[in-house]
Amino acid sequence: MKKLSYQEITALRLSKEEMKQTERFPIYTLLDNIRSLHNVGSIFRTADGVRLQELFLTGITGYPPRPEIEKTALGATETVPWTFHEDPVAVLQDLKKKNVRIVVLEHTSHSIPFNKLSPEYPVCLVVGNEVFGVQDKIVEMADVAVDIPMYGTKQSLNVTIAYGVVIYDILFKYLRLSDR
Amino acid sequence: MKKLSYQEITALRLSKEEMKQTERFPIYTLLDNIRSLHNVGSIFRTADGVRLQELFLTGITGYPPRPEIEKTALGATETVPWTFHEDPVAVLQDLKKKNVRIVVLEHTSHSIPFNKLSPEYPVCLVVGNEVFGVQDKIVEMADVAVDIPMYGTKQSLNVTIAYGVVIYDILFKYLRLSDR
Repeated sequence: MKKLSYQEITALRLSKEEMKQTERFPIYTLLDNIRSLHNVGSIFRTADGVRLQELFLTGITGYPPRPEIEKTALGATETVPWTFHEDPVAVLQDLKKKNVRIVVLEHTSHSIPFNKLSPEYPVCLVVGNEVFGVQDKIVEMADVAVDIPMYGTKQSLNVTIAYGVVIYDILFKYLRLSDR
Repeated sequence: MKKLSYQEITALRLSKEEMKQTERFPIYTLLDNIRSLHNVGSIFRTADGVRLQELFLTGITGYPPRPEIEKTALGATETVPWTFHEDPVAVLQDLKKKNVRIVVLEHTSHSIPFNKLSPEYPVCLVVGNEVFGVQDKIVEMADVAVDIPMYGTKQSLNVTIAYGVVIYDILFKYLRLSDR
């Protein structure tokens, strides 16, 4: 067993040009008032990894170009389609009209563990502010809320890690359904 | 569907005292030369969430008490058992003697996608340096290497996110096996 070199790994990935020609998965993400630009960049990097359809940055969430975003996005702001919108509600209303299911990552009275979710696609995962979570008015618009089972003492994971855990689960379920 | 308050969520979690009395899952983690103290703290927080058996900090990896670790650990350094060791090889040799399986998160000639892994327990997940990954000599000691399928242009995820994605998968597989 031998580690792959940087060049060997790069050869396994899509180039920016190839990425533009490649069909994306029917998975969206909406960031609701993410405070930290480093977190935004980090989510861009993960969103590249799951070949996200589109990333909606809303409310106080910062958007490119910002050096703090680039520091953690490592170029993914150029490979993930994104748009900025002050009002997340309008974005979600539009998605619902297009039959996109809305999943919020939030502790609610009716949240189910993310691993028990059987998402319908297309789907949009909403993650919220580092301290306050997803806004009430967005929770009310959701088709379903999921949370991450926590077996220790802490309330929750860091938002970028929680996002990674759940979006990969949503992606793998899609790939299984679509038999890829 | 109503968001839970901070107090309502806290009531669902273990207290520090309860955590001390609670049996931990047979899942370990070894950090091999993690450079960023923020990343170390962030991994502590996730390790609390999966009720990790023990976190081994090795090589140049920083260890508590450090304010930069606390900033992201948010107290999890007090709820996750941890030890520091200069030499990761000695730790892994000891774990192997105790029949702990060694899984490295690394791009190798023989890596399998993490979601295809059927881990045997107890298990230790090894994650490596942000730039250089897991050291060759550790890769050679591993029972198996896993990687995270990347569908975009980037080589890999941020190490703390990669850790979260894989450790939750390892945990859920354990919970299913043990029928909890």
